[in-house]
Amino acid sequence: MAQTLGPRPLSSILLLSLVPVGAWLLVRPLLDPLPPLPAFHAALGLSIFAFIATVYLVPALGETFIKARLFGRDLLKTYDTPIPESLGLVCASIYILVLILFIPFAFSDVFVNDYENRSQHGLVVAEFPHQKLAVYLSSILSLLIATMLGFLDDVFDIRWRHKLPIPIIATIPLLLVYYAERGNTNVVVPIPLRWLFGTLINVGPLYYLYMSLLSTFSTNSINILAGINGSETSQALIIALSVILNDLLYLPWPFGVQIPVHLLGGHAEFKIGGPWGAGMAYGSREMVERHLFSLYFMLPLVGVCAGFLYHNWYPARAFPGDTLCYLAGMAFAVVGIQAHFSKTLLLFFLPQIFNFVLSCPQLFGLVPCPRHRVPRFDKETGLLYPSKAIFEKPPSALTTAILNVLSTLRLINLSKNPETGLPETTNLTILNVFLVNLGPMKEDSLVQVLISTQVTGSVLAFAVRYGLAWLLYDGNRR
Amino acid sequence: MAQTLGPRPLSSILLLSLVPVGAWLLVRPLLDPLPPLPAFHAALGLSIFAFIATVYLVPALGETFIKARLFGRDLLKTYDTPIPESLGLVCASIYILVLILFIPFAFSDVFVNDYENRSQHGLVVAEFPHQKLAVYLSSILSLLIATMLGFLDDVFDIRWRHKLPIPIIATIPLLLVYYAERGNTNVVVPIPLRWLFGTLINVGPLYYLYMSLLSTFSTNSINILAGINGSETSQALIIALSVILNDLLYLPWPFGVQIPVHLLGGHAEFKIGGPWGAGMAYGSREMVERHLFSLYFMLPLVGVCAGFLYHNWYPARAFPGDTLCYLAGMAFAVVGIQAHFSKTLLLFFLPQIFNFVLSCPQLFGLVPCPRHRVPRFDKETGLLYPSKAIFEKPPSALTTAILNVLSTLRLINLSKNPETGLPETTNLTILNVFLVNLGPMKEDSLVQVLISTQVTGSVLAFAVRYGLAWLLYDGNRR
Repeated sequence: MAQTLGPRPLSSILLLSLVPVGAWLLVRPLLDPLPPLPAFHAALGLSIFAFIATVYLVPALGETFIKARLFGRDLLKTYDTPIPESLGLVCASIYILVLILFIPFAFSDVFVNDYENRSQHGLVVAEFPHQKLAVYLSSILSLLIATMLGFLDDVFDIRWRHKLPIPIIATIPLLLVYYAERGNTNVVVPIPLRWLFGTLINVGPLYYLYMSLLSTFSTNSINILAGINGSETSQALIIALSVILNDLLYLPWPFGVQIPVHLLGGHAEFKIGGPWGAGMAYGSREMVERHLFSLYFMLPLVGVCAGFLYHNWYPARAFPGDTLCYLAGMAFAVVGIQAHFSKTLLLFFLPQIFNFVLSCPQLFGLVPCPRHRVPRFDKETGLLYPSKAIFEKPPSALTTAILNVLSTLRLINLSKNPETGLPETTNLTILNVFLVNLGPMKEDSLVQVLISTQVTGSVLAFAVRYGLAWLLYDGNRR
Repeated sequence: MAQTLGPRPLSSILLLSLVPVGAWLLVRPLLDPLPPLPAFHAALGLSIFAFIATVYLVPALGETFIKARLFGRDLLKTYDTPIPESLGLVCASIYILVLILFIPFAFSDVFVNDYENRSQHGLVVAEFPHQKLAVYLSSILSLLIATMLGFLDDVFDIRWRHKLPIPIIATIPLLLVYYAERGNTNVVVPIPLRWLFGTLINVGPLYYLYMSLLSTFSTNSINILAGINGSETSQALIIALSVILNDLLYLPWPFGVQIPVHLLGGHAEFKIGGPWGAGMAYGSREMVERHLFSLYFMLPLVGVCAGFLYHNWYPARAFPGDTLCYLAGMAFAVVGIQAHFSKTLLLFFLPQIFNFVLSCPQLFGLVPCPRHRVPRFDKETGLLYPSKAIFEKPPSALTTAILNVLSTLRLINLSKNPETGLPETTNLTILNVFLVNLGPMKEDSLVQVLISTQVTGSVLAFAVRYGLAWLLYDGNRR
């Protein structure tokens, strides 16, 4: 049974064939006629390079991490090979370097101010005024602080309670620049409440509180849905892809598509693409720019997450550490805040919200919380079983009531410990819910179930966002 | 002889009495009448808090660093107590947090645009236009990357050759924003060369090369003048204080001082302070703003370095690690570049330049280079002696010539190894030069000699900058 684990093989031909594609996308904005979205081309090209760099660097640096004592054992395997930990640092470094290298493409005069003097291909978005550079830089700063704190967490193993405010520290540059630039703190009031508050309400400092809580949520909710190979990375990847899909709805495209949402009862039209004045942006240049901003952050995130998932997939050759969760969570918070679609963003976190709400009785001490809540690995069968929380003393009436409700909803399995006679419950995580309902399964099947759930959640999110949002908001306000 | 080392005692009364001073400086810009330099008040206040935080946090976090295996033994002591290493990370975190918290003071509308509506006390500098925010943020970003890479160097122990380009990576945000903002790449030609090049010459990309080399130099030159308690920190502190003194010459003050440099043969007048249009800024608002920018970065650096030196002083309770050298070096590069006084800045690095030039034969392999070149500690006498580089094979003619010159200049002691008959030389560092010329001494005396040299270097720098620069440049061009 003394298996060992070699590095995952890389197909250099396949990977290197991506190089010319990436290079072409980077060079294209410099050539006449100018493409409609020059910086978008560059972002796409850089993301391809980010993917390639991650795929190559993660295995190359694994040994260095192990030497620096940054490694862990895979608890859900039969072998004992040390697996390098905190490799999210490599992803984060590549990601942030790409974001920095992107600065001249989005903000320099060469690309932005020369539009008038060059032949153009259709409609060209002169992406960013110089003032937006400060917002962009403050976002990178927040991401870098999140990375740094994530890595410090991995090195110093910070306690759970001390960890919670970390994302708030990382949001400080974002918030202060938002403040210095006199950012909008108005909130659109949902239709049913307008008789009370009017259409717009200025929530002032509460808006800043909301923004820092958003980053805390997005960071920690990915971090607690962890423990099996590929879980953190795949969540980050799917949420990023969902955000990208949503962003693409707002861009001007050479073609237009109209989906007859009004047949479902919606008042809003649902148009994708088409020239200026069409698409979901409804002719708002600002909205196009916001979603471009979001794309610039999400495309390279997909690049590094996809590259890392290749090595993090079952059986994992590298662990992400907290660093990756902090990075991805902060990236989502950044785009949600800066591109003003935090409500839509939260919809993409449905499985994480479910997992967090379900975890509350353990997080707040009603139910005992073991250090690891990951499913239990059975060496004989090679399958994962739900892990259990064992009561040391009889539970309170409140706890018993909660457990009974959860048990009725088939979210946990309740049993009695044969020795102590006290109740036992499966741990309150979405992973255990899957195992309770679908039976024991292999680790890679479980992560596939998680991925399917995340994708289903995103489909649902789109349905709610574009099918039902008219119940609460006017069609042309987002 | 089994000594141990307890933490250095803190005088809480003295430290806490600084709190109201810092708080007052922070609140003052909010009160009428507005002080002449409101953001300068805030920077000073924040620096005091940075000092207090560093003094308290460094000993408090030492244990955590030791647990995370970030510690070293003091090679020049009789005891073997593990000393926490990389505590520069704590300094860097406090420093960067302070720089971020400073953003609203320098850039928000509350402080900048309300000037007209508030009563003012004399001349008020409405510090920064919003566009400068991008420059400020890119500087913080570079500092944070330098910190991160410095810490990674401490954790992963990167090899010497791989380390060299690290500061170049950290300068990327600085350079790209400089480029995106169409930064000036003109250089003023020294008078003796003007017949050839004219007064101003646009050096284009060479300017970017110069900027990244500047950061490489400032970072590594502090890093190689290390090895005894307090050496890195005190260098950083004295250079920062010199830069501050230089900056202060350009600010408008309520009084004016004129120093009769013309008596020494200079054509330039040397005026300090006075209202707008006087002082070294010669009425250039831009020059005042540049030197304010520099002060905003240097004041908190002095705060954290002074706080850290308290614990790093002989016998050291904490080591800075590479992190502090990277941070300080990058901070000097940032102000030199952004405030356009890189030549003056280099003058403050005279001892470092001397040390670097002297080290070249060892760095480039002409003379054997042991892993540590720090002076040798003699346990019997408690004194430091020059450490030696021992030749394994006979030196080349070139090496012999160089060593003879250095020996004649009393920079090294040459001797013959009694066993092999091959030559031995004291290591080529400024610390060994002190020991060769002044004889063996205690570690704290040696660091005091180093500090005196650094101060003398700065005095000389000021003399050259303001006494002799008229030979090369017009008086009113800086």
